Amino acid sequence: MGAVKSKRMPRAVREQQMLDAAVRTFGQRGYRAASMDEIADLAGVSKPLVYLYLNSKEDLFTACIRREAAALTAAVRAGVRPDLPADRQLWEGLRAFFTHTAQNPDGWAVLHRQARTHGEPFAAEITSMREEIVAFVTQLIVVAAREAHRNPSLPEREVAGLAEALVGAAESLAAWANATPGVSARQAAATLMNFAWAGLGDLMEGQPWEEAPETAGAPKGASAPADAAP
Amino acid sequence: MGAVKSKRMPRAVREQQMLDAAVRTFGQRGYRAASMDEIADLAGVSKPLVYLYLNSKEDLFTACIRREAAALTAAVRAGVRPDLPADRQLWEGLRAFFTHTAQNPDGWAVLHRQARTHGEPFAAEITSMREEIVAFVTQLIVVAAREAHRNPSLPEREVAGLAEALVGAAESLAAWANATPGVSARQAAATLMNFAWAGLGDLMEGQPWEEAPETAGAPKGASAPADAAP
Repeated sequence: MGAVKSKRMPRAVREQQMLDAAVRTFGQRGYRAASMDEIADLAGVSKPLVYLYLNSKEDLFTACIRREAAALTAAVRAGVRPDLPADRQLWEGLRAFFTHTAQNPDGWAVLHRQARTHGEPFAAEITSMREEIVAFVTQLIVVAAREAHRNPSLPEREVAGLAEALVGAAESLAAWANATPGVSARQAAATLMNFAWAGLGDLMEGQPWEEAPETAGAPKGASAPADAAP
Repeated sequence: MGAVKSKRMPRAVREQQMLDAAVRTFGQRGYRAASMDEIADLAGVSKPLVYLYLNSKEDLFTACIRREAAALTAAVRAGVRPDLPADRQLWEGLRAFFTHTAQNPDGWAVLHRQARTHGEPFAAEITSMREEIVAFVTQLIVVAAREAHRNPSLPEREVAGLAEALVGAAESLAAWANATPGVSARQAAATLMNFAWAGLGDLMEGQPWEEAPETAGAPKGASAPADAAP
């Protein structure tokens, strides 16, 4: 490190600066287009120092994914207060999620777009983060079902499916909100809360959507969509 | 082609066989791991013929994405019958979507996982397909709002957000359903319909979820809905 022209600063602090610069560069320019020169410049350090600390572009990207995934899950967990009713917990969790993704658009771009579009080993990092969030949401839904207690035996598989749907909706909406000028974190959270809770709420009350009887003249063929597939 | 040992068969038919083999191989083994040898073997043709017809591994993968994206959007469009009420249209659309993704798990893996995890130009193909589906769902929601007509002016931005949420939920759920033994297309569609419609349904009726006041014990909905409601 003697040859590296840099102020004396603890390694941990330097590393965070490098990661800040890397998240911004990867998030805005993409994994392939981002150069280590650019990242070192933005961090105000030499390129050899980046390699010394973080080994390779791939390792640096992996470190970015891990840091951003940990920050996001921590933000969501911190937002949820277990003493509140389930709907309020969900609302607080959604607000925390959309606030974090809005405040860290580059971090979210790294997680949602970049990490998924450059194959392994990056995709595996996302899968792991996603499983943690799905498990967390599943738990919330189980608590909600217990509170509503009209349907204490909401099947485990149904809960798993609802959690997958909710997480997928949140991911999709966060990407849209960040790409759409003027959509606030609170609005995005409210949209998903309306979509999800009024739906989940009715479900918890034992009031699923019910298929209306076929109108006269409509064919009864339950497999019509399958047959229509080319 | 004289050197290629193959039965006489129209080029279009041969190409479809190559694409069938490629979708299966890419979907099951991934873009990087899939070899042109394997694809040619599975299609029952020589590797030079695959290159002659489809040029390169990248072009072959792009052709797979386009074919599978077109088949999926066609299946969903064919499943929806515009003469039905909006909830039935959504139900039929969801059933068509989940039936198609269940019957074509390799095609769905190509679209949802492979095409998104290998950067450009593949990701752009998916973005384009996704925009078409979001526009279609947006239209469905607009029609539903018009039918419910309690809230004829559901803001355009809110509708766009709901459509993004619904499409994200469907993508997530289809991946989960295909990876979870014993979950049928109909069950996945019903889970999302319950989640989405009871929620959208309440919303159309002008009954969004309302944030209860902070103080525990207060009746739900008694407070001003903060700005949770758009």
